[in-house]
Amino acid sequence: MEAILRQSRSMCPFLAKTSPATLRSLSTTAAGHDVSPSAGSMSNLQVLARRCPIMGKALAVQSARIGNNALAGAFGGVRAYHTRVNRAKLHTSAPKEAQAVEIENLRTKQVPFPPAPKQPTTAQTNHVGVPHAPKAATFDYEGFYHNELDKKHKDKSYRYFNNINRLAKEFPRAHMASKEDKVTVWCSNDYLGMGRNPHVLKTMHETLDNYGAGAGGTRNISGHNQHAVALEGTIAKLHAKEAALVFSSCYVANDATLATLGSKLPNCVILSDSLNHASMIQGIRHSGAKKMVFKHNDVADLEAKLASIPPEYPKIIAFESVYSMCGSIGPIEEICDLAEKYGAITFLDEVHAVGMYGPHGAGVAEHLDYEAHLAGKSRGTVMDRVDIITGTLGKAYGCVGGYIAGSAKLVDTIRSLAPGFIFTTSLPPATMAGAKTAIEYQANYRGDRRLQQLHTRAVKEALNARDIPVIPNPSHIVPLLVGNAEVAKQASDMLLEDWGIYVQAINYPTVPVGQERLRITPTPGHIREYRDHLVEAVDSVWQHLGIKHTSDWAAEGGFIGVGEPGKEDGAPLWTDEQLEVDTVLKEMKSGGSAVNVLEAILEKEHQATAQAVSAAA
Amino acid sequence: MEAILRQSRSMCPFLAKTSPATLRSLSTTAAGHDVSPSAGSMSNLQVLARRCPIMGKALAVQSARIGNNALAGAFGGVRAYHTRVNRAKLHTSAPKEAQAVEIENLRTKQVPFPPAPKQPTTAQTNHVGVPHAPKAATFDYEGFYHNELDKKHKDKSYRYFNNINRLAKEFPRAHMASKEDKVTVWCSNDYLGMGRNPHVLKTMHETLDNYGAGAGGTRNISGHNQHAVALEGTIAKLHAKEAALVFSSCYVANDATLATLGSKLPNCVILSDSLNHASMIQGIRHSGAKKMVFKHNDVADLEAKLASIPPEYPKIIAFESVYSMCGSIGPIEEICDLAEKYGAITFLDEVHAVGMYGPHGAGVAEHLDYEAHLAGKSRGTVMDRVDIITGTLGKAYGCVGGYIAGSAKLVDTIRSLAPGFIFTTSLPPATMAGAKTAIEYQANYRGDRRLQQLHTRAVKEALNARDIPVIPNPSHIVPLLVGNAEVAKQASDMLLEDWGIYVQAINYPTVPVGQERLRITPTPGHIREYRDHLVEAVDSVWQHLGIKHTSDWAAEGGFIGVGEPGKEDGAPLWTDEQLEVDTVLKEMKSGGSAVNVLEAILEKEHQATAQAVSAAA
Repeated sequence: MEAILRQSRSMCPFLAKTSPATLRSLSTTAAGHDVSPSAGSMSNLQVLARRCPIMGKALAVQSARIGNNALAGAFGGVRAYHTRVNRAKLHTSAPKEAQAVEIENLRTKQVPFPPAPKQPTTAQTNHVGVPHAPKAATFDYEGFYHNELDKKHKDKSYRYFNNINRLAKEFPRAHMASKEDKVTVWCSNDYLGMGRNPHVLKTMHETLDNYGAGAGGTRNISGHNQHAVALEGTIAKLHAKEAALVFSSCYVANDATLATLGSKLPNCVILSDSLNHASMIQGIRHSGAKKMVFKHNDVADLEAKLASIPPEYPKIIAFESVYSMCGSIGPIEEICDLAEKYGAITFLDEVHAVGMYGPHGAGVAEHLDYEAHLAGKSRGTVMDRVDIITGTLGKAYGCVGGYIAGSAKLVDTIRSLAPGFIFTTSLPPATMAGAKTAIEYQANYRGDRRLQQLHTRAVKEALNARDIPVIPNPSHIVPLLVGNAEVAKQASDMLLEDWGIYVQAINYPTVPVGQERLRITPTPGHIREYRDHLVEAVDSVWQHLGIKHTSDWAAEGGFIGVGEPGKEDGAPLWTDEQLEVDTVLKEMKSGGSAVNVLEAILEKEHQATAQAVSAAA
Repeated sequence: MEAILRQSRSMCPFLAKTSPATLRSLSTTAAGHDVSPSAGSMSNLQVLARRCPIMGKALAVQSARIGNNALAGAFGGVRAYHTRVNRAKLHTSAPKEAQAVEIENLRTKQVPFPPAPKQPTTAQTNHVGVPHAPKAATFDYEGFYHNELDKKHKDKSYRYFNNINRLAKEFPRAHMASKEDKVTVWCSNDYLGMGRNPHVLKTMHETLDNYGAGAGGTRNISGHNQHAVALEGTIAKLHAKEAALVFSSCYVANDATLATLGSKLPNCVILSDSLNHASMIQGIRHSGAKKMVFKHNDVADLEAKLASIPPEYPKIIAFESVYSMCGSIGPIEEICDLAEKYGAITFLDEVHAVGMYGPHGAGVAEHLDYEAHLAGKSRGTVMDRVDIITGTLGKAYGCVGGYIAGSAKLVDTIRSLAPGFIFTTSLPPATMAGAKTAIEYQANYRGDRRLQQLHTRAVKEALNARDIPVIPNPSHIVPLLVGNAEVAKQASDMLLEDWGIYVQAINYPTVPVGQERLRITPTPGHIREYRDHLVEAVDSVWQHLGIKHTSDWAAEGGFIGVGEPGKEDGAPLWTDEQLEVDTVLKEMKSGGSAVNVLEAILEKEHQATAQAVSAAA
């Protein structure tokens, strides 16, 4: 029965959005209100079943014709269970039988609710003629909020925000609530420090003065301007697509685009990577389209699911390039191959990759054909084959906002149909102008992202050398496995309070329970002084709190890549050659240690980057 | 049957989100794919019915037991119709019969789709053994986009964006794509010109320099800072609530808050004004909660619906203070009374009212107890009684972003549970700091919004004097009824091209078909020169295009307030006394014309406002 329920949930809008726990609760709790004064108590699931236009009507007709227990007769072989008792169990032990709901005491009434008493605010009012215990009065909203929060406190998923004020002139430093209380930020998504880039700030200051603080309207009503036109042109060019469209955020871009396509394309099926970001999950849910979740980065599983769908049905494969919480990278080319083979379109979230990969910072898809894009030849590349690319202006580009890029007709369709785009105020002119400058700067200068990658390598190598459990991956994310929500928060607090290092603990629901972690994101600004300090601090905290080391995980056979044989050294996406350190590395590796070689290169790179930035100031 | 369908749609998640047109189309188009090689053709509705966990399972069991036409038998008195034909009609002429779907050739197969052919990308592939005409190959996505856009072109709802660059130093002027091509903006939602306010810009410049262009992360991961804390504190104080929470936009605030509450509160029912903004409609849809739409501003209809819901069920009444497209104002106090009576909570969207009404600019709810709030006494006021207030930082406050304000526990619950808040990058520090300055400025200075109201009165009076059909309302919105999408766009284009006046045409889906309009929004910057020019231009365009005048509508009995007896003079919410023009008006009204009196006052006000702004520069 569980298997049938699981399968059904992917198809029925009611079951799809209702968790098993809720279903269980619905079926085992008596509805707070009775169907009619003479009726017995019903489960909440029964109340819902009565409202289903298909089931409800059928039940009503049958009930009118042949009285109670009609459903059992109507459904022939279906066992009528739990009649004359208050609770219905959704899960039964009869796996081959169809699902049914109780029909006890069903009436043909069409009203959605029974008549309410005349003075419903009076506490403990009973329904006339109902012999039950007194009912609750009106709903206790504050009590409900209290309980919801209490649950989060109890399961340690309640979130305490740290007051972090990132200082543009002292990147990557920040002050806390007090200006004197300074820390080093090690978990910002301003990966390249573009939030303090002098070019970006100069553009924003000028635009503020000339065009003001806000756009003043939706794109359709006075909020469309030269900044939107120029930014969308720049984004389209970056990804070598015909067009682009800017949204309030990439959360909104993903949500609005998937919801619109999934609801408009007839019979659309959306295939979604199991680790996809919440914005995509919501977009798919909001679309109402059929969803199939494939195993993370598993092209065989994806192909099996694609093959199960009729070829003429529209299909969207939604996935990411860099998965931000584990740093894994999606098999973009293989997914494009499958999309072509099965007539699907690809929806690729490059949120954590734009600005960071590729010769122009267009993301991992661009990086896969590094030389071709460097030569300006995008035709036939992986990026060219991806149908829809989404990205953010709020991470490596240092501003705020999100976008999609794709064919002119796709973009115009989303522009014309997506409520999340149509009915919202445009981003401010200064934000759009600043973001455009950031994209162009990164398209023309590779130093920041190369230095970021080198710092990432240095941090990973140094932590691995101390037996700290870095979850292996080929990207710029440095996730440290903790495996417990409370301990992860303790580690984060200890780093902040004792060491002046800010690394946020990542707990459920952002990662699964048991996979809690610290997620470190180096930037070009994390020079040796900061890195040495971080490694020292993490090492100390790990020992102090008795957090498992890589060797401990290995002794248990490994977990999510940590301590798993053969998973130690995921080759980084940025090759030595692309980082332009290959010859130096080869020469020096015969002599000194790898870390020392890296540090020598970093010192050189850091100076070059500092020059590039100051030239703009 | 139509009535039953209407009622069912409010209850079933599938029917609720599927338009009648789509249902009709589903039931009358054959599915592109057959159930099994031996099956006949089915309608798309049948395909969907098979996937319903309740109906599908029942059908499968019956089909296995007694073969085809099982449903007719199972449902006793239900007429089995359209068997052995390709099309099922959803709407039948047998009103008393239950709704049924075809079950012809149903199989007990559990797979969601039949096996796909091995090479589905090959065009015109046939399914093995299917004797039908050749099937379409893979889905034609570009063709689909093309058709969607074509539909919008054909029904004149395709939107052409005007390139409007609002000039901070020449407010309310803007330039088009070319810097030399200047126009006067008459439809911005920067109602008070705060986008160019020197205090706001100064704060933003300083914050940009100190804290950079972007927040660098979500609120939980390095994106929480003193600017967020201060802004949320200012908003909570503005609305005299315990707490507030800032979102990327008020679209997101409304969507995320209603979706979260509606999905978490058990058995929640959301009562929604029929003219509610798209963001609320989406939030309600995304919540999956039961929705009841009440007639616009109709408290009797609202009460009837509230009374039909059991008292212990949680209920949210979602409505607006100023409805932006018609300028009507919600009966906030009466709705609070009903909420108390029936144990509901109120969700009030003050997006078009914050900054604009009330002694501190907190909105219409504050305005209703003007003197009490002026005296700092909020306890027991209408604003105090509203449970959740949502507002924007992107209209009268001139920046971007949205928020909710309410009890500490409500706000903490949304903060903890809403994906649209949790998983998105924070607003930039400079945006939050600028918005805080704007709120504080407007809380301490009433000149801007008083002048805005006076300009609104002047524009409405002058247009009414020319028989131009202003849709009457008590707010700052000046909607001119056109009644035809194409003509509305022509009028807008003509104003822009011939008169240098930008007023966007408002067409479907923002307003219903047949109610197309021009929506004019005066600001404190629209001094007499601009107003006279506008009235002249509108008068000319109306004559040139032969658009109906108020007298024409009156001759037909009136339409949505225009030309309807007794609807001419909705008393403005801002009284003469609150505008502090009552004594002057009384004195002068005995002498000159009303318009002239107003102009004299405006001249005085304009000078005072200009001084207030320049004092800050």
